[in-house]
Amino acid sequence: MAQRPSPVRGMRDVLPDAAERRQRLQATIHHVFSRFGYRPIETPALEDLRFLESGQGGENEKLIFKTLRRGLALDQITETSALADAGLRFDLTVPLARFYATNAPELPSPFRAVQIGPVWRAERPQRGRYRQFTQCDIDILGEPSLLAEIELLSAGSQALAAVGLTEFTIRLNHRGLLTELLGACGFAAESHPRVLIVVDKLDKIGPEGVERELARDRHPTPAVSALTEVLAQADTATTCEQVARLLPPGVAETAIEELRTITDAVVLPETAPKATLVLDVSLVRGMGYYTGPIFEVAAPGLGSSIAGGGRYDEMIGRIGGQHTPACGFSIGFERLAEVLAPATVDHATRLALLWREEQDLGAVAAHAFRLRAQGHIVETIRVSGRGKGVYKRLGAAGFDLVAQALDDAEPRPLST
Amino acid sequence: MAQRPSPVRGMRDVLPDAAERRQRLQATIHHVFSRFGYRPIETPALEDLRFLESGQGGENEKLIFKTLRRGLALDQITETSALADAGLRFDLTVPLARFYATNAPELPSPFRAVQIGPVWRAERPQRGRYRQFTQCDIDILGEPSLLAEIELLSAGSQALAAVGLTEFTIRLNHRGLLTELLGACGFAAESHPRVLIVVDKLDKIGPEGVERELARDRHPTPAVSALTEVLAQADTATTCEQVARLLPPGVAETAIEELRTITDAVVLPETAPKATLVLDVSLVRGMGYYTGPIFEVAAPGLGSSIAGGGRYDEMIGRIGGQHTPACGFSIGFERLAEVLAPATVDHATRLALLWREEQDLGAVAAHAFRLRAQGHIVETIRVSGRGKGVYKRLGAAGFDLVAQALDDAEPRPLST
Repeated sequence: MAQRPSPVRGMRDVLPDAAERRQRLQATIHHVFSRFGYRPIETPALEDLRFLESGQGGENEKLIFKTLRRGLALDQITETSALADAGLRFDLTVPLARFYATNAPELPSPFRAVQIGPVWRAERPQRGRYRQFTQCDIDILGEPSLLAEIELLSAGSQALAAVGLTEFTIRLNHRGLLTELLGACGFAAESHPRVLIVVDKLDKIGPEGVERELARDRHPTPAVSALTEVLAQADTATTCEQVARLLPPGVAETAIEELRTITDAVVLPETAPKATLVLDVSLVRGMGYYTGPIFEVAAPGLGSSIAGGGRYDEMIGRIGGQHTPACGFSIGFERLAEVLAPATVDHATRLALLWREEQDLGAVAAHAFRLRAQGHIVETIRVSGRGKGVYKRLGAAGFDLVAQALDDAEPRPLST
Repeated sequence: MAQRPSPVRGMRDVLPDAAERRQRLQATIHHVFSRFGYRPIETPALEDLRFLESGQGGENEKLIFKTLRRGLALDQITETSALADAGLRFDLTVPLARFYATNAPELPSPFRAVQIGPVWRAERPQRGRYRQFTQCDIDILGEPSLLAEIELLSAGSQALAAVGLTEFTIRLNHRGLLTELLGACGFAAESHPRVLIVVDKLDKIGPEGVERELARDRHPTPAVSALTEVLAQADTATTCEQVARLLPPGVAETAIEELRTITDAVVLPETAPKATLVLDVSLVRGMGYYTGPIFEVAAPGLGSSIAGGGRYDEMIGRIGGQHTPACGFSIGFERLAEVLAPATVDHATRLALLWREEQDLGAVAAHAFRLRAQGHIVETIRVSGRGKGVYKRLGAAGFDLVAQALDDAEPRPLST
């Protein structure tokens, strides 16, 4: 094999320093979520394609890594869709909905779940985006009231603060508000999904860009103008009062009232003094499955979105379960892991126990065992010759202490 | 969708009680391994098929879940092998070898890695066997001496004892011993792999069965008889002295000496008083990649094998890396998780905060927040009407305390 081995295209290895940091961050997030009563579950990495391709995952359904049907013979293939019957999950929400539909009789109601795990999307490889990445999700299933949204946003904020994020903005909107707004502007109901795809690009193309694309798609001109006018002022309407004044009179009153209940009740963490919660009528979120309040979290220097979620009351019923109200909050772990320092550190000392080829291996192992019993992390390191440069190397590798095998002396600090 | 949703065939969901137990067991195992200096790494779930199918994974290579090549058009397919270019890993050893070949310049030597994660094999579904399951692996790369084996067996034993396994047997053999034994019996070198596949069935078919199969495969009759005679007495030769007497004079002296070094030096845990280390000349282990000492761990009532491993000095060189001595120990996590009680428990109390529809959600959230700050795990539970039976239900669900939202009273213990 001439080529130097590498991970699969678009994926990557995580080396020990980074892996330990990731474990600590995940443990911190998990700890906060567990304090709110979220409990872990596990689902398989693979799910049946009939769930993954049920039409609710938006663009992600085009990015599924599909697994070859077992025992396939070439002459049985009549169309490419016959090649695969399962795929790697592209998020943790669809598997959770499937899990709930399968196991509801054995679960409490409401059911609070936390999942931290990898998902896979065959996106075009680009800098900082990987085809396998980790999400941290909490969901409340079976709770119709807004307490679900309030708790998810409180717990999510606490988790972000716990890993050291002191400044972030939660943007909040409501699918019901968007529907009423589009209706009031004069868009026919069947055009709403297409219109929302364009509105979702506001961040990138601005109000003029949205107006141009909507006009090009031949939506009614008065509707396009009315909507664009609202979107152009979305930035300046961040409270419920401002949003109520921005929208045509009487539009989305119930939705605004719901958003007010949420903004009044969410407990933002004291340890994140610059965390804020604002309304943004231009927030859409891509997934087709949202039905109520939706939210997204951004932090300075961390790209457009580090977390997001919302209410998806129809999904579980649609994939074959009982109708169940549902709401979720998902942290995109990779961006956090790249920029944040670990919140907690392992205080166990790392000790290098030096040994030589000619020594009795049983005695070396026993010596290491005694040092571990004293609470040290002990790695045995073989030295040869005069061991030149070994201390320097150990210091650089992060060891705190050094001891000699078969030597009764106390471990000595490594001067780095 | 008429069918009730279920996980992909051969896979399963893990519900909260079991998931929490699994997390605690894994944390305990990880903690023990980290004390020996093993450090975590992450590799992608998918690997290039040229690594997974390099001929070293034995039967497992036939059980790979392969992923469909992206952007495939039906008319491009000329053979089924063109359909897929990557697959889900079937163990953690091949990905580790690939990882090391990729990243060696950035890793210390020797490099100690711990990996706890899922692997996938499309085995015929059967009771208690799943197509996705978790392994806990430790490996030492770059250490040619037997200290690698000694440390792996010591750390592995400590980990098993730490999760509550007090009685287990480590069986130990050496690929070099097997090679010399087969040679001394009169088997030609090229027939060894086929002979070992039959010897590997000894547990199931007994010495007579092995003799019958070897005879049927037309191996020389004197060789078959000589080997069968040794295998029939394998049970009774569990020390180095007994094995030396069992084998033809002068055979495998170096291998026996190596096994003696290992058995003399492994530190068995005091907390597992019935743990033993014995030799077993009939131990083969399926993988083609082993080159030196091999081992397997069995425990009463836990099937044939709960852990295993050995030395595989050739693998990293073969898949394109620098030649690197390597040795690993792998715990099959699923059987352990099914039978063992958690070694540690989370002592935080679970508190149910009862609230009613008509209450102010912000005040409910703030009350929950205060109780969490006191160290409780707090779940908010909505009650309606007179809340009949709710206390009983909470007790059954494992709550310790109950409090009423908007009530200043201290949380009360739930009498279950």
